[in-house]
Amino acid sequence: MRIVLLGTGNLATRLGLAFHAKEVEIIQVFGRNESIGVHLSKQLGCSFTSLKQEIKTDADFYFLAVTEEAIPEILINSPISNQLIIHTSGSVSMEMLAAFSINYGVFYPLQTLSKQKEVDFSTIPICIEANSTDNLKKLNELAYLISGQVFHIDSAKRRQLHLAAVFVCNFVNHLYSIGAHLLQDQNLDFDILKPLILETAQKVMTFPPEEVQTGPAVRGNEAIMEIHLKMLEQYPEWQNIYSLISQDIKQLQ
Amino acid sequence: MRIVLLGTGNLATRLGLAFHAKEVEIIQVFGRNESIGVHLSKQLGCSFTSLKQEIKTDADFYFLAVTEEAIPEILINSPISNQLIIHTSGSVSMEMLAAFSINYGVFYPLQTLSKQKEVDFSTIPICIEANSTDNLKKLNELAYLISGQVFHIDSAKRRQLHLAAVFVCNFVNHLYSIGAHLLQDQNLDFDILKPLILETAQKVMTFPPEEVQTGPAVRGNEAIMEIHLKMLEQYPEWQNIYSLISQDIKQLQ
Repeated sequence: MRIVLLGTGNLATRLGLAFHAKEVEIIQVFGRNESIGVHLSKQLGCSFTSLKQEIKTDADFYFLAVTEEAIPEILINSPISNQLIIHTSGSVSMEMLAAFSINYGVFYPLQTLSKQKEVDFSTIPICIEANSTDNLKKLNELAYLISGQVFHIDSAKRRQLHLAAVFVCNFVNHLYSIGAHLLQDQNLDFDILKPLILETAQKVMTFPPEEVQTGPAVRGNEAIMEIHLKMLEQYPEWQNIYSLISQDIKQLQ
Repeated sequence: MRIVLLGTGNLATRLGLAFHAKEVEIIQVFGRNESIGVHLSKQLGCSFTSLKQEIKTDADFYFLAVTEEAIPEILINSPISNQLIIHTSGSVSMEMLAAFSINYGVFYPLQTLSKQKEVDFSTIPICIEANSTDNLKKLNELAYLISGQVFHIDSAKRRQLHLAAVFVCNFVNHLYSIGAHLLQDQNLDFDILKPLILETAQKVMTFPPEEVQTGPAVRGNEAIMEIHLKMLEQYPEWQNIYSLISQDIKQLQ
């Protein structure tokens, strides 16, 4: 199985390295950023191009690991025609690719990927979808090479998964940022919050989150909530976030 | 060291069991809820009372593991006079206890504790404070029996820690709840989000949260954010939370 990797960002990097480690051949990296692209292609032992017309046409899979807007930009007037084109986006429907090939699918790893942090792909849920049984089979085989968790999920469900992921990952990470800032204000080290952060995540591995909620909002402790809002006076956005989420916690119980 | 435990909730239970496991003697449990109290006192091998006047007066520590409002309720007209009284609250100042004893302090475990989930106390940061060097020494010794992480932290800093903990624990857990609901709506299993939840927490063990932010808001992907807001149409509160946090992510970068 030979792959052309279109993109040089976080996902392209992590995905390329995961395939490479399983001896899936990446034959080429394409991207706009020359220096990052050359570096990545060296890691993957393949060539790099930033010119659309130089994209090789003899691969089995064309992996689009780029932002949603860049997908049509790359595909229009590219030498890729009826090869199997795969996008990796949570919120873009599969049918968006129908304009560019008769063979297409989606390969969406449900994980937060950063260039600076290695990640064990074997535990990442991979959501796949394809336009034919044959293409789904190919994609399934490829996905199982790097992950033990492969799910056949349609575009509507994948979109919902992506939305949920924004809440439990991106928004959660932002709350970590707010916590870090609040500690900085009092010269406290972020390290002291780490056991709490881990345990909060660990808890929902076993219990539904609603059942293990703790804190002033779920206890209806208005006095503490008022103190907290007052402490946030210089951060009106965080006051709003505090009120809104506390309100919602009370409603959900 | 002999302890009287005042309270029968999550914290009282977890704390009592942690002391008991380290062979610190709990001599009595006091609480309003008879059945829970009797059950807890049996686990701790001690007696139980729901009558204030029966509180034993020969303990070294009186641990208040109750809600903030209940602290004065218990202490007014109780037989506890100048013994060492300890409260366990994040947001209540230590001086609140000055009205009830000449020996007092705070023992605040920075962790989310639920009755249903066991927890390894040895990694929980314990924030202690006391009204005298002597009492601080006693409290320090006791804290180190159950945890390797003991911090001397004053009331202002502890209050700030508690506020940060609400963001990184209670509010984070609520975002997990929202994620679980969104998945339910599409008959998707919450399990599929678990590797993402864990990795998001794991990441900030090594990297500052701002540096590893991912997702549509930090990429400035307005098209995806609009789709997401539309998908949340039946949940106006979650729409608000989505807008507010996305806005804040963009501002922080």
